[in-house]
Amino acid sequence: MPHPDAPDTPCVLIDLDKVERNMVRAQKHFDKLGIPLRPHIKTHKLPLFARNQMELGAIGITCQKVGEAEVMADAGLNDIMIPFNIIGPAKLERVKALSKRVKLTLCADSAETVAGYAQAFEKARDPINVLVECDTGAGRCGVQSPQGAVALARLITQHKGLHFAGLMSYPPQGRSEEALAWLRQAVETLSELGLKPEVVSMGGTPDMWLDWPSDLVTEYRPGTYVYMDRSQVAVGAASFEDCALTVLATVVSRPTDKRVIIDAGSKALTSDLLGQVGYGHIPEFPHAIITSLSEEHGIIELPSPSARPQIGAQIEIVPNHACPVSNLYDRVHLTRRGRLVDSVDVAARGKLS
Amino acid sequence: MPHPDAPDTPCVLIDLDKVERNMVRAQKHFDKLGIPLRPHIKTHKLPLFARNQMELGAIGITCQKVGEAEVMADAGLNDIMIPFNIIGPAKLERVKALSKRVKLTLCADSAETVAGYAQAFEKARDPINVLVECDTGAGRCGVQSPQGAVALARLITQHKGLHFAGLMSYPPQGRSEEALAWLRQAVETLSELGLKPEVVSMGGTPDMWLDWPSDLVTEYRPGTYVYMDRSQVAVGAASFEDCALTVLATVVSRPTDKRVIIDAGSKALTSDLLGQVGYGHIPEFPHAIITSLSEEHGIIELPSPSARPQIGAQIEIVPNHACPVSNLYDRVHLTRRGRLVDSVDVAARGKLS
Repeated sequence: MPHPDAPDTPCVLIDLDKVERNMVRAQKHFDKLGIPLRPHIKTHKLPLFARNQMELGAIGITCQKVGEAEVMADAGLNDIMIPFNIIGPAKLERVKALSKRVKLTLCADSAETVAGYAQAFEKARDPINVLVECDTGAGRCGVQSPQGAVALARLITQHKGLHFAGLMSYPPQGRSEEALAWLRQAVETLSELGLKPEVVSMGGTPDMWLDWPSDLVTEYRPGTYVYMDRSQVAVGAASFEDCALTVLATVVSRPTDKRVIIDAGSKALTSDLLGQVGYGHIPEFPHAIITSLSEEHGIIELPSPSARPQIGAQIEIVPNHACPVSNLYDRVHLTRRGRLVDSVDVAARGKLS
Repeated sequence: MPHPDAPDTPCVLIDLDKVERNMVRAQKHFDKLGIPLRPHIKTHKLPLFARNQMELGAIGITCQKVGEAEVMADAGLNDIMIPFNIIGPAKLERVKALSKRVKLTLCADSAETVAGYAQAFEKARDPINVLVECDTGAGRCGVQSPQGAVALARLITQHKGLHFAGLMSYPPQGRSEEALAWLRQAVETLSELGLKPEVVSMGGTPDMWLDWPSDLVTEYRPGTYVYMDRSQVAVGAASFEDCALTVLATVVSRPTDKRVIIDAGSKALTSDLLGQVGYGHIPEFPHAIITSLSEEHGIIELPSPSARPQIGAQIEIVPNHACPVSNLYDRVHLTRRGRLVDSVDVAARGKLS
């Protein structure tokens, strides 16, 4: 029982020493590169850690949802970028209200999104910053070519309520050169047109330790780095010693000498595999595999017959993906050197819209 | 836009007509078999629907977590079974308190779990009902053989605070005969010992339409049947017309003529695949595949180039697995014939312990 003072299981434990070490290491790396950080709060969803990130030198934060941005604005964060196409009158009203409270930057990858922003900010006192989202190879959102980025930038400049502020991309993991060449081409053409981007925003924890070029990239938006997780260890971005978020579970059944059932299922760990074998890593039993999850049960197979872990034992699990785990808990528990020191509400949990 | 009056996306819509039809059909099926229903509330997590299930004839409800049982007890539900080994003093205190408010039935698959119950209920006025959980082939919790069930039943009878009430199993899907033979053998031996089980509780929506034998099975605990979902359609337990829970999403980007990005990712749909291809079924675009999810984006590939669905269009998705989707939303929206009629808090959402 590593945490006798922990609340009932399953629960999330956050090791504050590791969080601080992860934050400092990242800030130092990007300080050295001369690139400001704009951390993505999707991972922790906590005003406390967003403020810590700002205190360490971040220039602002990134929120994926309007609802997350509202929570962070309420908590005093005042420079927020939303790297997501905001569609529809309800959300546009909300970002308009938000833009009066904080320095807000929006993103767009289509004429439709731009049209919505143009209408919402038509009568705004100050134009809203808009970045063009670029699909530099990840295959999610984004304009499909540097020419597409230029065309959309020109469209943005035609609306007086909008200010074309630059480019944003979530680059494909492991193919940063390709992404950078894409963006460099767009920046060159835009510069020739007198539209040199003020911002070229890149993101992603897996590739964050690369030597990003500060002559092109003006900010970096890592999210997971604050906690790290098993998938980041798998791609070499972290070690298990860096993983600050763990799920504490209790063994509730030992049906056989190789099968262990814990009280953490998909409602506690998520079903995210992210290419991993099993649903998390158990430092105390590194060769055990969490082979399947139902909602409330986790099934662990041991590599060989063993009486351990026994019923009632508590085990810590490093999840495959820390970010969606944060979203499952109303509250998380903060520890230092294995002792519970505080609990905090996950204020931006469950902000779907 | 099928639901112009719906709240902002992503959100969950519950078709009340379908829910009622699903509830009635199940109750009729089990009435015909002569087997009472004890629905599992894990799917809806709503006191409203638990009460509806009772009004239609259920003898009680099933809750997987103590926290869910507490919510349901607060809402007036008074006969609750928890088919989960309750381990540790904190939860045992809570079930003790709960047993004073409702008719409670617990389950155990080990001497350790029984010892915890024995201590907690040592001085109880009335003994607590305990069922022996049986692994009849599903490979999760449960004693491993009819002999194991008999041994644990005998152990339960040795404690004055405990009443051995029978057997409980979550049978392996598609192998009901195997499970029934297992249980029949246990019941026979127990009967010979004067310990004839009052309760033999079976569960699971996939196989619920079988002709379960009422001379053996005394209650059935389906959960998903109230909403149904894509995985139930895949195993033949439902049709898409029965699927009452849908996730409403908005198209936020059309990067290419075959790629559609929606604002529903793993935070809105879960990453549960349950053997399906893609992360949900889109009735309006049945050949489109939701190929991947990040937390806030769903990526849909169309079978052929198309301008539809356009940016701003709303699309309804039948998720692979309805139950964990319920757990992601603070509130769900109730509809009839496509019109929003009410919204309710998901009262038992996020009850992890």
